[in-house]
Amino acid sequence: MNLILLHDSDFINPSRVRLSGRRFSHIQDILKAECGQILTVGKINGFMGQGTVVSQKADSIELEVKLDNKPPQALALTLILALPRPPMLKRILFSAAMLGVKKIIILNFNRVEKGLWNSSSLRPEAIEEQLVLGLEQAKDTIMPEVIIKKKFKPFIQDELPALIKGKQALVAHPGSNKGDGHILSLNKMCPSPLLTTLIVGPEGGIIDHEIELLKAAGCQTLDLGPRILRTEYVLPYVVGRLLEFS
Amino acid sequence: MNLILLHDSDFINPSRVRLSGRRFSHIQDILKAECGQILTVGKINGFMGQGTVVSQKADSIELEVKLDNKPPQALALTLILALPRPPMLKRILFSAAMLGVKKIIILNFNRVEKGLWNSSSLRPEAIEEQLVLGLEQAKDTIMPEVIIKKKFKPFIQDELPALIKGKQALVAHPGSNKGDGHILSLNKMCPSPLLTTLIVGPEGGIIDHEIELLKAAGCQTLDLGPRILRTEYVLPYVVGRLLEFS
Repeated sequence: MNLILLHDSDFINPSRVRLSGRRFSHIQDILKAECGQILTVGKINGFMGQGTVVSQKADSIELEVKLDNKPPQALALTLILALPRPPMLKRILFSAAMLGVKKIIILNFNRVEKGLWNSSSLRPEAIEEQLVLGLEQAKDTIMPEVIIKKKFKPFIQDELPALIKGKQALVAHPGSNKGDGHILSLNKMCPSPLLTTLIVGPEGGIIDHEIELLKAAGCQTLDLGPRILRTEYVLPYVVGRLLEFS
Repeated sequence: MNLILLHDSDFINPSRVRLSGRRFSHIQDILKAECGQILTVGKINGFMGQGTVVSQKADSIELEVKLDNKPPQALALTLILALPRPPMLKRILFSAAMLGVKKIIILNFNRVEKGLWNSSSLRPEAIEEQLVLGLEQAKDTIMPEVIIKKKFKPFIQDELPALIKGKQALVAHPGSNKGDGHILSLNKMCPSPLLTTLIVGPEGGIIDHEIELLKAAGCQTLDLGPRILRTEYVLPYVVGRLLEFS
């Protein structure tokens, strides 16, 4: 937790918050903060700044806050993600929020295990938990939007083309440099990290028919080299590449 | 498991292996392989190729193997890593092996919790397990070397300078663009991924005195931007950047 994220309901007056629970424990036990100590804070979807410890009780702490810094710029990358198994979903949501992704679409693919759609890790509060942890790690305050799409074909045919119009849409797809005519060299990538949509398929891979539909919708396949990266590492790897040019 | 990694002891004759245990279960239960099916295999520290299922028993399977492909090129990056907590260590070892790192030095830092040095995750077999999983994920066969250094200062002063001579050594260090005179713009990075050493400190950060010793040994600090990345994502992010130029 490199930043303590504040909710509207934490404010007991415009410049003072009272925290209990997880954030209280962190400030007390990990940061071992004392009265007068200054902590980095930020308001969800608002500004960041400093919080000075002004009162400590057995189960809560009060901070006097001054919020006058803008959060870091959003990463202008939309992530479209095949629903992974719960531990992986948690880590990808965390890392996407950490990296500054502000729009995440969780999508069905042929090789997504159907039972995963009933997972409790898809509940709004479970999703929000990981996003908050990612923002706290990165020092950011702007909550990403997460959209769930359980039907692949209608989304790809009816919604994706408008979403990616005039932008680049990349499908991470190992082996796509082998004669499919749609090689996108990473060195020739759009020189801006802006306006990119990255599509990361399921662990078992994206089937040919899905690749055809994605291409028909305007996507290009992207081969990340001979090594097959586990899905949770594709996003940081690609973001590292894209940001090179910024 | 995108490749089944074979040990010397698996070979019952020069072109035939018998597998049991974890790899047998994977082939049987996940891949649901039948006689005649061809699987991707590779010999540890050797060639990769195809394995054809030729016999299936209740607790073992035999493959006829043909090994005639070189593994992918090594990533010429040495990782020096502050010992993290066990779950993070596992994931970083996995990801380093997956990304093609062949030399990993696990080092003490001031903010490494001392008790971690007794962790069972540092046992050779625990380390090897994660490296094998990373190679199987990536489709690679060359085992990384892992070296453990429990003393920071002697390593930095006596061994590091020779290790990085004529190469670039980068210390991931958030906030290092604030007036320390050693900014290394990522855009001005060495155009080759070769000959890089990346130093990733502990979660709590690298203390000033350690930064001074690292600089004196020839390292440059590297600021990855306003977001603080969790240590396990620094490596894929930086590798994504470095490889851009290759």
